[in-house]
Amino acid sequence: MYKGRSLCQKKNAAERTREPAHLQVENEMTEPVNVLIVGAGAIGGLYGAILKRAGARVGLVVRSEYDVIKSDGVKITSPLGDLSYQPDGVYRSAEEVDAAPDYLVVTLKVVDGIDRVAAIKPAVGPNTTIVLIENGIDIEPEIAEAFPDNRLISALAFVAVSRVGPGSIDHKAYGQLTIGNFPSGAGPEVHHFAELLEQGGVPGVVSDRVVTERWRKAVWNAPFNPVSVLAGGADTRTMLQTPGGEYAIRAMMEEVCAAAKAAGHPLPDDIIEMNIASTHKMPPYYNSMALDYLNKRPMEVEAILGNLVRAAERSGVEVPRLKTAYALIKMLQANLAKQQ
Amino acid sequence: MYKGRSLCQKKNAAERTREPAHLQVENEMTEPVNVLIVGAGAIGGLYGAILKRAGARVGLVVRSEYDVIKSDGVKITSPLGDLSYQPDGVYRSAEEVDAAPDYLVVTLKVVDGIDRVAAIKPAVGPNTTIVLIENGIDIEPEIAEAFPDNRLISALAFVAVSRVGPGSIDHKAYGQLTIGNFPSGAGPEVHHFAELLEQGGVPGVVSDRVVTERWRKAVWNAPFNPVSVLAGGADTRTMLQTPGGEYAIRAMMEEVCAAAKAAGHPLPDDIIEMNIASTHKMPPYYNSMALDYLNKRPMEVEAILGNLVRAAERSGVEVPRLKTAYALIKMLQANLAKQQ
Repeated sequence: MYKGRSLCQKKNAAERTREPAHLQVENEMTEPVNVLIVGAGAIGGLYGAILKRAGARVGLVVRSEYDVIKSDGVKITSPLGDLSYQPDGVYRSAEEVDAAPDYLVVTLKVVDGIDRVAAIKPAVGPNTTIVLIENGIDIEPEIAEAFPDNRLISALAFVAVSRVGPGSIDHKAYGQLTIGNFPSGAGPEVHHFAELLEQGGVPGVVSDRVVTERWRKAVWNAPFNPVSVLAGGADTRTMLQTPGGEYAIRAMMEEVCAAAKAAGHPLPDDIIEMNIASTHKMPPYYNSMALDYLNKRPMEVEAILGNLVRAAERSGVEVPRLKTAYALIKMLQANLAKQQ
Repeated sequence: MYKGRSLCQKKNAAERTREPAHLQVENEMTEPVNVLIVGAGAIGGLYGAILKRAGARVGLVVRSEYDVIKSDGVKITSPLGDLSYQPDGVYRSAEEVDAAPDYLVVTLKVVDGIDRVAAIKPAVGPNTTIVLIENGIDIEPEIAEAFPDNRLISALAFVAVSRVGPGSIDHKAYGQLTIGNFPSGAGPEVHHFAELLEQGGVPGVVSDRVVTERWRKAVWNAPFNPVSVLAGGADTRTMLQTPGGEYAIRAMMEEVCAAAKAAGHPLPDDIIEMNIASTHKMPPYYNSMALDYLNKRPMEVEAILGNLVRAAERSGVEVPRLKTAYALIKMLQANLAKQQ
């Protein structure tokens, strides 16, 4: 695991020349790092606490939980201890934020009906690094295109955390973020952000091929998430123990690997075995899309499956099972919408 | 359409020599044909009425609706007029039947938990012709193996009929049965049964390749039925109008055609176009499996999809989309069973 070095440390001239001008200015700041988290929820609330522990000033843009967080802060139980905190600013929208943050962390769900660009634009300054802690494949281009002059960090969370009530979060286990620049590389801001995470108590793993990491995670996510929903909101054990279930999941994982390879992200040969074996070892588990479905919340269908199917088609790779699952889940969404 | 000739007519010696001995005896009967329908419901109740109109004696084996049918008979509204009738016998099980029928018509659902062989065995005599009016592929072998010495008619219903209350049936449209011997051919009993249907007011279409007819029907049924369920109980319009939906259905239909061909039942080249076009023309329609799912009744998953997938595998034909849909629907069933 790479341990980032704080950018607040003195640097030699050679290192400086590799950094953009605005980052050099930032390096010389003595004030705390300013972080704004847009789309709090369980993930945003938790990483706000982590960054606060690292000494950052942390503001939250929250909508439905504004009142409770404004008055009582964020309550978090965690294996790391009591992570509850009062944010340094609580806002109903990014328009209320007066100073552009150093890091703008996006934890919005990637679903139809949420305009991520519009949600963050008022708070993005010229020196703001945008950090996407979001699920899926190809979720970065929309942001990269809207903010071509900003540094962009793509982050994958490996964490068990859930919202247990208004402003109240239960961090159950893990917490690692794997981070890198989009589409590749790992600039100083990536290492700096990783150091903040480490200081805050969770692993910050730097990868200069974060898109490959997204494909690696998709091997599990792209089959299990939609399949759980199509099976009526099934847990992992139900899916794997049904006759034909494990075979179907494996066959879909093979399609993900073929699509990943064609997109320039070859994955290890044993990745399917590893995923299946570890899932067998887990207690029965409801994934994020299953929980969204069972709780009648919007599902991240495009981020988790649709973008992947389209990437495969651009590469000329056949993914008949994933494409079928995608069509089925789109029909399910259409049917659910009709019933409302 | 072939119009069967009644077996009650005098036959010449040449014809007689091609018929089994017990059929010759039957030919000389002057008494009405005896029909027993096992598993009444909408289909059984309706064809009981049709056969009664043709002059047959019709007994029904019914379970949940025994009392109401015993006292009030079967009520049927139909474009053919009022088809309501009092059966010549109403039984709780085949064990109560005293004389083996000429035709034992099976309209039981083909689902786990219904033992069709046990349900009919007590009423099957040496001269009984068994008629299966049931959905699906490969639903005959179990019966053929259990009753190797009985003639077996396989029948496909093209009918819009539904149960509207205890002992009460609404026949909306159509009514044709396509019938033939299993696995192929069309003996005199097939023609005789077709004639009874015609006399009763519905088309009786004789086919000497009824298994091919089953594959033909599967082109629609095997995709649309499970897809409707996986989409949460969707109607045909929702399925076809969802982006990617028609494509997925067509791709699954292609797999059915490939499996049919490999099983020795090549289908016309334009069959997919015809099915898609006619479905677009229908009003939004909930198919039988969708209705079973929405009403929490057992679904004919094996008859409609599982047997087809297994037939494809026996032939070495890849049906990735159908196999995925089959695994998904088995997981859904497992998940539903878990919730009970």
